[in-house]
Amino acid sequence: MLHCTGYAANGPTEPLRQIQFEQAAPGDDEVRIDILYCGVCHSDIHQVRNEWHNTVYPSLPGHEIVGRVAEAGRAVTLHAVGDIVGVGCMIDSCRQCEACRGGEENYCSGPNSWLATYNGPGIPRAKVRDGVNIYGRDNTYGGYANSIVVKEDFVLRIPPALRPEQAAPLLCAGVTTLSPMRHWGVKAGDHVGIIGFGGLGHVAVKLAKALGCAVTVFSTSADKQEAAQSLGADFVLQADEQVLQSLAASFDFILSTVPTKHDVNPYFPLLKRDKTLVAVGALEKMEPINNMFTAFHRQSFAGSLIGSIKETQAVLDFCAEHNIAPEIEIINIHAINEAYEKVMDGEVRFRYVIDMASLR
Amino acid sequence: MLHCTGYAANGPTEPLRQIQFEQAAPGDDEVRIDILYCGVCHSDIHQVRNEWHNTVYPSLPGHEIVGRVAEAGRAVTLHAVGDIVGVGCMIDSCRQCEACRGGEENYCSGPNSWLATYNGPGIPRAKVRDGVNIYGRDNTYGGYANSIVVKEDFVLRIPPALRPEQAAPLLCAGVTTLSPMRHWGVKAGDHVGIIGFGGLGHVAVKLAKALGCAVTVFSTSADKQEAAQSLGADFVLQADEQVLQSLAASFDFILSTVPTKHDVNPYFPLLKRDKTLVAVGALEKMEPINNMFTAFHRQSFAGSLIGSIKETQAVLDFCAEHNIAPEIEIINIHAINEAYEKVMDGEVRFRYVIDMASLR
Repeated sequence: MLHCTGYAANGPTEPLRQIQFEQAAPGDDEVRIDILYCGVCHSDIHQVRNEWHNTVYPSLPGHEIVGRVAEAGRAVTLHAVGDIVGVGCMIDSCRQCEACRGGEENYCSGPNSWLATYNGPGIPRAKVRDGVNIYGRDNTYGGYANSIVVKEDFVLRIPPALRPEQAAPLLCAGVTTLSPMRHWGVKAGDHVGIIGFGGLGHVAVKLAKALGCAVTVFSTSADKQEAAQSLGADFVLQADEQVLQSLAASFDFILSTVPTKHDVNPYFPLLKRDKTLVAVGALEKMEPINNMFTAFHRQSFAGSLIGSIKETQAVLDFCAEHNIAPEIEIINIHAINEAYEKVMDGEVRFRYVIDMASLR
Repeated sequence: MLHCTGYAANGPTEPLRQIQFEQAAPGDDEVRIDILYCGVCHSDIHQVRNEWHNTVYPSLPGHEIVGRVAEAGRAVTLHAVGDIVGVGCMIDSCRQCEACRGGEENYCSGPNSWLATYNGPGIPRAKVRDGVNIYGRDNTYGGYANSIVVKEDFVLRIPPALRPEQAAPLLCAGVTTLSPMRHWGVKAGDHVGIIGFGGLGHVAVKLAKALGCAVTVFSTSADKQEAAQSLGADFVLQADEQVLQSLAASFDFILSTVPTKHDVNPYFPLLKRDKTLVAVGALEKMEPINNMFTAFHRQSFAGSLIGSIKETQAVLDFCAEHNIAPEIEIINIHAINEAYEKVMDGEVRFRYVIDMASLR
């Protein structure tokens, strides 16, 4: 057992506070990682505040983790002590269902779904018939800590071309936005719309530009225009009816990164016929979709959830190759509660990454 | 000019009453059809009652028209006087947009969209920039009449194997349900769910069975169980939670034929990962979709609108080949207002078809 420390909340209205906890030594197929950096995802806030109605306390979030391998189990072959590695939203899956066998662990249909990096399992024992828990753990602790133990095949290689702190947001924000672009066949020359220009949105713009797409950002924040344009994107203030009309039926794909319930109806007129609007940010009931419009253009609304381990490695490698790095602000772990407020207020430019050295 | 008669409403709360109107003689590329039968579609009721907020009065509905060619313009080559022919939801389109050139006139993006058989143009002059009306007509009259004039290439051949009165519902209900099954790749061996078992739903079951699918009907009407099972479908009463659970993640495609706003969320757990639920009946705002579920299974919600002329001919030919005929009740035109009430109450088994001889 290792004595560890991290930041966790004890209830939905509690601030995150430092806690001590015990961590089992790595098993044969596991590595223990000394955490260097952890990104702050809007999901962390949803989870800590029990907005998905499934939070187990203490809640210790963080799923954009970069660190250094400190110990490796004796069967480990993929990583070595000293390697700079990453951990994203998953740390295990059932490995037996069709999705897992097909390399899409993020859609694991095992009894507990995939094992979430924090607050895992995804489907808790209490909700599974006969109380099954294939992972034997009821509340995993994430990356707002000094250490984590993970099965080696759920650990990503951070390419040397990426700075560790900048690689962190790719592990959730990066793969969550690239995975649907790949799945829906976004290709060079396509016109891609990105709704929301925050942690996910700004990474999505960089990825879509690197894919060779023309990119338009839709945002409610006029003060984000310059940043979007500096990435080579067009910028549309959501309320600008005239501009929206001029963009009618011009998009091949629209990705909504807005992290809360919102109205996607204004965007269907911008999509070409037969195309899809995918929402990755808002994991909740959306505003009602007007099928009078979608039917007339045979359009689809879809959801997409993070990405597989293979896709996560691919986004890291893609970003290293294309010299893509998220725009981050490094913060001290002691500033995490203020950081949450700023994320809620849309003030972050564009992703907070916690320097975990501040914890020690 | 031909003196014609038909049944039309003069306002959203008015009953349909007999009216007289003038009809221009067919042009060179048009045929005039003596109408024998016309199906009663739920859309007729939506339109007459101005539920889509775009009705022009008098409103003379009917877009499941079968009749006999009475006159043919001198350039007509596809049909001859005496032929039994059909007219569906469209009687013209812009013929210049990408959709029209690709044989998908039902997604015509011309200034007025396609020309609807009744209440056309689809997008009226008043809503188009510069008041364009490429069709030169502001309120088309449909099939609740003794005669209609239509461009020959929007007129369908009724195969001799189909009885004219049974062919009528295929012109809307048939193509509206087969088109999305074809578009989303439904194939033999697939498990297909059909929500709603009325005019569209029961035809959808017959078509899906003929495609070689296993079919399950979801209905709120327990008294439709026997009819559904007689078509070889499984029947699930929508409220039956236990049965719904046993069907989890077992469907390749789900088609909702429910003609009014409804909640599709209970059906996403029945769909396999990456699959689509398509709503063809409710052309309005749906109940909010819960993206917590759709994202976790990368599922899509989509709309689909009738079908092209080519697809309409194909569904007629397919039904002739597979010996498929809608279940109809022949009614007298004078009973149309009561028939509407019975359609609203779900009492029809399963499609009313007006015998237009009753009009003369």
